[in-house]
Amino acid sequence: MATTTVSASVRSLAEIPLRQAKSSRKDAATRAARIPVTSHRPSVPTGRYAPSAHVGEAVPFTVTAFREGHDRIGVHVRLTAPSGTTTLHRLAPLNDGFDRWSVSVVPLEQGVWRFRFETFADDYATWRHAAELKIAAGVDPVLMREMGAELFERAASERARPAPEKSVLTAGARALRDAAVTDDSALIIVRDPNIARAFADRPVASLVSVHEEHTLLVERERAGVGAWYEFFPRSEGAERLPDGTVRSGTFRTAAERLPAVADMGFDVIYLPPIHPIGEVNRKGPNNTLTTSPGDPGSPWAIGSAAGGHDTVHPDLGTLEDFRTFVRAASDAGLEVALDLALQAAPDHPWVSSHPEWFTTLPDGSIAYAENPPKKYQDIYPVNFDNDPEGIRAEVLRIVRHWIAQGVTIFRVDNPHTKPLQFWEWLIRTVNAENPDVVFLAEAFTRPAPMQALAQAGFQQSYSYFTWRNTKEELEEFFEAISSETADFMRPNLFVNTPDILTEYLQFGGRPAYKVRAALAATAGGSYGVYAGYELFENVARPGSEENIDNEKYEYKLRDWAGAEAAGDSLAPYLRRLNEIRRAHPAVRQLRGYTTQWSEDDAVLAYVKHLPAALSPTGVADTIIVVANVDPHSARETTVHIDSEIWGLPRGHDYEVEDLLTGAHWTWNEHNFVRLDAFIEPVHILSVKVTS
Amino acid sequence: MATTTVSASVRSLAEIPLRQAKSSRKDAATRAARIPVTSHRPSVPTGRYAPSAHVGEAVPFTVTAFREGHDRIGVHVRLTAPSGTTTLHRLAPLNDGFDRWSVSVVPLEQGVWRFRFETFADDYATWRHAAELKIAAGVDPVLMREMGAELFERAASERARPAPEKSVLTAGARALRDAAVTDDSALIIVRDPNIARAFADRPVASLVSVHEEHTLLVERERAGVGAWYEFFPRSEGAERLPDGTVRSGTFRTAAERLPAVADMGFDVIYLPPIHPIGEVNRKGPNNTLTTSPGDPGSPWAIGSAAGGHDTVHPDLGTLEDFRTFVRAASDAGLEVALDLALQAAPDHPWVSSHPEWFTTLPDGSIAYAENPPKKYQDIYPVNFDNDPEGIRAEVLRIVRHWIAQGVTIFRVDNPHTKPLQFWEWLIRTVNAENPDVVFLAEAFTRPAPMQALAQAGFQQSYSYFTWRNTKEELEEFFEAISSETADFMRPNLFVNTPDILTEYLQFGGRPAYKVRAALAATAGGSYGVYAGYELFENVARPGSEENIDNEKYEYKLRDWAGAEAAGDSLAPYLRRLNEIRRAHPAVRQLRGYTTQWSEDDAVLAYVKHLPAALSPTGVADTIIVVANVDPHSARETTVHIDSEIWGLPRGHDYEVEDLLTGAHWTWNEHNFVRLDAFIEPVHILSVKVTS
Repeated sequence: MATTTVSASVRSLAEIPLRQAKSSRKDAATRAARIPVTSHRPSVPTGRYAPSAHVGEAVPFTVTAFREGHDRIGVHVRLTAPSGTTTLHRLAPLNDGFDRWSVSVVPLEQGVWRFRFETFADDYATWRHAAELKIAAGVDPVLMREMGAELFERAASERARPAPEKSVLTAGARALRDAAVTDDSALIIVRDPNIARAFADRPVASLVSVHEEHTLLVERERAGVGAWYEFFPRSEGAERLPDGTVRSGTFRTAAERLPAVADMGFDVIYLPPIHPIGEVNRKGPNNTLTTSPGDPGSPWAIGSAAGGHDTVHPDLGTLEDFRTFVRAASDAGLEVALDLALQAAPDHPWVSSHPEWFTTLPDGSIAYAENPPKKYQDIYPVNFDNDPEGIRAEVLRIVRHWIAQGVTIFRVDNPHTKPLQFWEWLIRTVNAENPDVVFLAEAFTRPAPMQALAQAGFQQSYSYFTWRNTKEELEEFFEAISSETADFMRPNLFVNTPDILTEYLQFGGRPAYKVRAALAATAGGSYGVYAGYELFENVARPGSEENIDNEKYEYKLRDWAGAEAAGDSLAPYLRRLNEIRRAHPAVRQLRGYTTQWSEDDAVLAYVKHLPAALSPTGVADTIIVVANVDPHSARETTVHIDSEIWGLPRGHDYEVEDLLTGAHWTWNEHNFVRLDAFIEPVHILSVKVTS
Repeated sequence: MATTTVSASVRSLAEIPLRQAKSSRKDAATRAARIPVTSHRPSVPTGRYAPSAHVGEAVPFTVTAFREGHDRIGVHVRLTAPSGTTTLHRLAPLNDGFDRWSVSVVPLEQGVWRFRFETFADDYATWRHAAELKIAAGVDPVLMREMGAELFERAASERARPAPEKSVLTAGARALRDAAVTDDSALIIVRDPNIARAFADRPVASLVSVHEEHTLLVERERAGVGAWYEFFPRSEGAERLPDGTVRSGTFRTAAERLPAVADMGFDVIYLPPIHPIGEVNRKGPNNTLTTSPGDPGSPWAIGSAAGGHDTVHPDLGTLEDFRTFVRAASDAGLEVALDLALQAAPDHPWVSSHPEWFTTLPDGSIAYAENPPKKYQDIYPVNFDNDPEGIRAEVLRIVRHWIAQGVTIFRVDNPHTKPLQFWEWLIRTVNAENPDVVFLAEAFTRPAPMQALAQAGFQQSYSYFTWRNTKEELEEFFEAISSETADFMRPNLFVNTPDILTEYLQFGGRPAYKVRAALAATAGGSYGVYAGYELFENVARPGSEENIDNEKYEYKLRDWAGAEAAGDSLAPYLRRLNEIRRAHPAVRQLRGYTTQWSEDDAVLAYVKHLPAALSPTGVADTIIVVANVDPHSARETTVHIDSEIWGLPRGHDYEVEDLLTGAHWTWNEHNFVRLDAFIEPVHILSVKVTS
């Protein structure tokens, strides 16, 4: 099979020359094809939506295919890129007892791809299997040789076949028929690798069955890959005044922090809502119901007399200032992600201009958000059913407005509290105009709605990562996201958020912060950090799972440079993780993850691998991550690595380099590790490619 | 909710009065509905075929459904019977964290059913949840009471609502608005069960979402339920002659055995092929290549000068004799299942009349069946691709021919060695003419083709049951067949076949025979026994997994009555098992199986349960099976039974009767059992219904 690609639209493990395929005979009004396929991937379980991938992602095309009896089959997948370029790829049997076949292909064009599987009787493989056994056993050798000769001649007669292949095949046929050639010598021809290659690239196929066409939405790389950093612009450059109040940071002062964020290697800067904040029922520090003058309120309580979702908070500056901020980010190599929180403070302009967008109660009041018997009196939830067309038009107007200001990514607040139908419509409409716009769902909800949002269009989703902290939880979680749900859901592994400071971080000390960052940065394709993580901010409001004196309700003044100078910052560690991500394409892939075995119940190990043929560098990339997830201990154990993942037979030595410390070791199948959480809780090992 | 059914086409756990449902607003060109559903069952994984069930089967209709936020939803399934009768059933939440809802319904009409799910905002449930919490907490009590009053009035104004319900609702509304009624009293109205019942049966629904229609093929009961008995008619009444040769049994002598088979309680008598047997390359005893005069050959080597698949073997009698046999079976309450083995002996009439139905090799010979380098020279496999239309017409002619003789069931030999497409076409064509014809697939193959055959139309399938012998294997197997694959595959749990005598039976002694029969008869819907099982025939041909001196190649003379008289027969045990099956509808259901926990690694326990509303008797049926699957031991252990399966809270006593021994015990959650394999390895306990 071809090991290098022949097309510019894909990288492939097994691309072969394109050829036409027509089903051998009409499908006789049955749902089963002559050589049937059953389940396939990529696919979305309910079949309602198309699966998705991103440019540069190694996508396994897998199908269950079989035929009756013992004759051999072959399977191709025919891919058509958005540009119309069609390529053909040969699937390999997984030999797992479930009749599954697979080939991994990297799409290099953005847009809607079409793919269909083709199955066929592999006459060469069937003959070769029988010929090897029967000639060796002296059963029907003349007949088997003649059948082979006829097959070789049939192959040689194909017009599209290159002349050198024709010569090999013709010579093979002649020798098989030559009575002077012994059966033992004939067996050499039966097993000839050049002949096998000729038949693999251009199979002599019969009973060709062309299956139904499917689509795959290929989005831009940032839909699946990125390192995110969240900060509140009002905190960046905020100053405490002599009277004890704080002067808000602005887009201009916040922009001064961008080079440092970019220097840490992040790709996306995500801003909580930048709009005017409601004055009515504004929340005070630590989510209290009373405010003092100078309390800035929660950015998620959107809207005041100063404007609504299409307006910037006057304290932050002007719309022009925001555009300048976006340009500064872009200059630093950062994309800006804006928060899209569809709810209103009681003084949001919508409340007077469009009361029908909210729920009016029998007493004439507008319904607050509530979780009975609790009420959240700083927020009116939008009622999407009174005037759905009006709300759709307004939200589309707002999204287009921010896209016009240079925003390319929206982080959507609580999408699971709004109709799924609405999101499907919005994202499809926006992406039809701007296929590059990415929506991240803050879908902290049950699996069914979380997955439905991903299927309906969200490019990314927050996930359960923050609550998966033990080795067993992490293994199950990483296996699920990298395989089960990878055709439709791309989790963004945020390590913390303004809403989430888990007990693991509260009580795990600095080792916990390292472990979680290293896992987030290497296990999935996207991850995120909320500012303050690098300062190990780990004090929670008592009884809650979020930071005390939460930035949601206050300005946060932090001394980034001072902390880094004192060695009290995780910034250098994050910088190194992001360097590793940039240098190693395998790390950036959500797929290509395999859990490895270690005896210790706190030592988690996994391999991320990208074969040379699928790698943008043309070189295979293999990373072994070994993490001690117990942040209070030093652990010694043996880690068992399956080197066959990257094509090295088990039992062979290989060289690894710890990308965090620079240490070099010679590893093999069973490897001693000692991970002291207080020194370095994680190994990120790069396997040296031996040529 | 209704506990008794209002329709004759179904039995249901929650049928409610029929009402029209129209989606509240047009689906705005999104794939998601306003209140979305994702996966549902019954369904077939790839979506290519319709799921199936049988008349009398309790079918769970399950769907994943949710809405945004915290408001409550309701889910209905609307079923339309083949006759056009439509019924509505309310699903209950499974509360499993996966947003699944379910209701079980028993279809009572054969044919293609249609079903669709409907989701809606359950305004009563949403209000009731908020009202209970808020009124109790003193938050907005006046408002909550007014909202309730408006809701009750809305419900009372519905034309179709019965007058008594209207009164209750109107009185409730009045009381909620009555300032003289305290909030504490108002809470009684909020929780009033009559009002809850009124809203459950006729919900006040908003945002009604009507989902896509699906179909469910409901077949006759025998498609899913039956006790099968296999015998070779040539052995029944065969006589050893003074010269040592055997005179073949005939349809007439075999018919004399039918009353005994019926007396054991079997439903189906399955005959290996009854056609002329090839003379060319006929196999001798124990699958040897040499025959002596008088060796009858394998019935699966079909065809000779005497005829092919449409002919009866002259030794067995005439076609008229066969019809008489079928009538005798019918009179005894037995259906006849005929073998359909699409292959030919070298002297089959097809070979000369239609050589194109076989594979001709370059040397002009016809290809034998083979598994290289082995050849099976008594068999030519059919080549389905040279003349597919011709073969289809011929097989259809043959099947129709036997249906005309009274055959209603075909046991299909090795269907996985013939094209899936062919079977789909054949079964669909035959069932279009005769929906009652049942096809059993002898699909001893890998899971993918086995399941594909079931999905493409086979009503039943042989299964891996014979090779699942440990407790762990059996639990996994029973859970898979009763749930995962139950929407499309109905396994027939044969305990043995002429091809399969497992080591478990070879070396397990009589206890093994009891255990396997008891499990087969109670765990699934259909099971089967090949004659000789009741005589504990357990000697295998050395190195093989089948009986020595196999009946496939010989006549088998057995002394049924003598063995029974001597107490050396399992017939009484089989008779009792079949009596239990007839008396207990829960036992006959493939679904409704739940594994129970026991500490002993050889003591398997499960419950089969059918609620009263779904039972043909109108009485709940609950069976607990406890089996010691180690046939060489006596085991003592504790079995833990979840009585909530049949609605009894845990910790309560209940009475059970062992249907095998007549013993009575009082059981509870944790029960001591002692099962001595050499006495009775299995309990089949009937839970006494207390009214």
